[in-house]
Amino acid sequence: MDETVKYDWEIIHFNESSPILQDETIASENPLTVMINGMEFATMVCSPSNVKELIIGFLASEGIIHTFREIASIDIDIKQGFAYVEVTRPIDMAQVDHSKRFIGSCCGKSRQFYFKSDVKTAKTVLNQLVVSVAQCYTLMEKLQQASIYFKETGGVHNAALCSVKEIISIQTDIGRHNTLDKIYGDILIREIPLRDKLIVFSGRISSEVLLKISKMGIGILVSKSAPTDLALKLANDLGITVIGFVRGRKMNVYTHPKRIYEAIKTKQDQLSP
Amino acid sequence: MDETVKYDWEIIHFNESSPILQDETIASENPLTVMINGMEFATMVCSPSNVKELIIGFLASEGIIHTFREIASIDIDIKQGFAYVEVTRPIDMAQVDHSKRFIGSCCGKSRQFYFKSDVKTAKTVLNQLVVSVAQCYTLMEKLQQASIYFKETGGVHNAALCSVKEIISIQTDIGRHNTLDKIYGDILIREIPLRDKLIVFSGRISSEVLLKISKMGIGILVSKSAPTDLALKLANDLGITVIGFVRGRKMNVYTHPKRIYEAIKTKQDQLSP
Repeated sequence: MDETVKYDWEIIHFNESSPILQDETIASENPLTVMINGMEFATMVCSPSNVKELIIGFLASEGIIHTFREIASIDIDIKQGFAYVEVTRPIDMAQVDHSKRFIGSCCGKSRQFYFKSDVKTAKTVLNQLVVSVAQCYTLMEKLQQASIYFKETGGVHNAALCSVKEIISIQTDIGRHNTLDKIYGDILIREIPLRDKLIVFSGRISSEVLLKISKMGIGILVSKSAPTDLALKLANDLGITVIGFVRGRKMNVYTHPKRIYEAIKTKQDQLSP
Repeated sequence: MDETVKYDWEIIHFNESSPILQDETIASENPLTVMINGMEFATMVCSPSNVKELIIGFLASEGIIHTFREIASIDIDIKQGFAYVEVTRPIDMAQVDHSKRFIGSCCGKSRQFYFKSDVKTAKTVLNQLVVSVAQCYTLMEKLQQASIYFKETGGVHNAALCSVKEIISIQTDIGRHNTLDKIYGDILIREIPLRDKLIVFSGRISSEVLLKISKMGIGILVSKSAPTDLALKLANDLGITVIGFVRGRKMNVYTHPKRIYEAIKTKQDQLSP
């Protein structure tokens, strides 16, 4: 990973003894404005690593592109904080409704959608991968061992695309959802097959996080942190298994336990006389 | 606080013994679309408590209003997730540039600005309040003791407007920056004088967090978590004292130690022969 993801800063550290002047490692945060076919589309802040993956994943998540082949060119100027993207078809910015509220009684997928673009891009996940509790614990340990920038800065999140046994792609960012866009971009660029993949994540599971998982077509999300109720309602509707609070040898399964080997067994035991 | 801020959800909990079916308390997340004078302005997600404060603070932070008196009326429909705001002067939505990139060599305040609206609303803080290290520790303890919803859900952030001795206003939200908008709204509605106030916060200090502090005119930000480099560059430029990683009897002062009693003393000792 690029060294620009972190930065040294002189601080005064106070503890029980005398104050100390020392250098502290800080997470970098860079503004990035995405221009599409010459027009300003959005400005985000991010960690300046794997920015190409971030932009591709972000544009796919927003419904602007569906495959990497729809990108004619992409030029990234990290220093100025601009990315110039050309897509192969004309885009009418006035028609781009990525932040417009969705209002409708039902859309055939989930009553919980609130952005119009999500109605078009989020989808019910049919992936039937099954994982064991022990595999969830092991993958979370692997994510934490690999999270060197978190250990140094305390200021970044991590997401990993995994098989049930190992990490395939790990992404770091100051923004929770950016880590998932970077994963999505990597999937599209490398055309990674997803039938046997899940995502392991350091952050809280908000509706935005859950929607990104659904857009990728991933069936299992494993997180160290807590979910919100809106994320869980969306997960229920979209067929996604949410596992949270994976800490040491404990974890909670919130939705669709059908993809957890031991949960299937638990339900069967409890249902049988 | 409103009970709708949390929600019960049936989970399967795994630990070293048998799996258990149990109810878990989850943080609520609600979409909220803000309509200004009949036009769609923005959609956010939030915890459904103190929503009036959230909207007032958000609109002030975005530069739409400057005082509470500029609000003619505000109607909130939490169930549908809409807030209808009438402001006393006409607003041209096409001219509202709250997410438009700022491009300029210098704006007289900080070279780090990236949104046009921040150039107009963020300001150099002249507040000269001084706090002691022990006061920072005590205020962080008070914030954590008061954070009952975090203890229950693990999924919310807290911010408190404080004097050097006690909490004046505490706000909770699933969104880090929403807690600060709720504080800002409370300040504007109650016209709280800020000369002797600081903010104590549970979340990471990103550029967005720092800019909100500057817009309020607060000089000291005390956080449990890590800052980013962009937030610190802005804090340097805007004259804000950033204190991070306040945990137990340890803390880091990142910028403008002039407002920390012991840091002034440290600098003097180190500079004197």
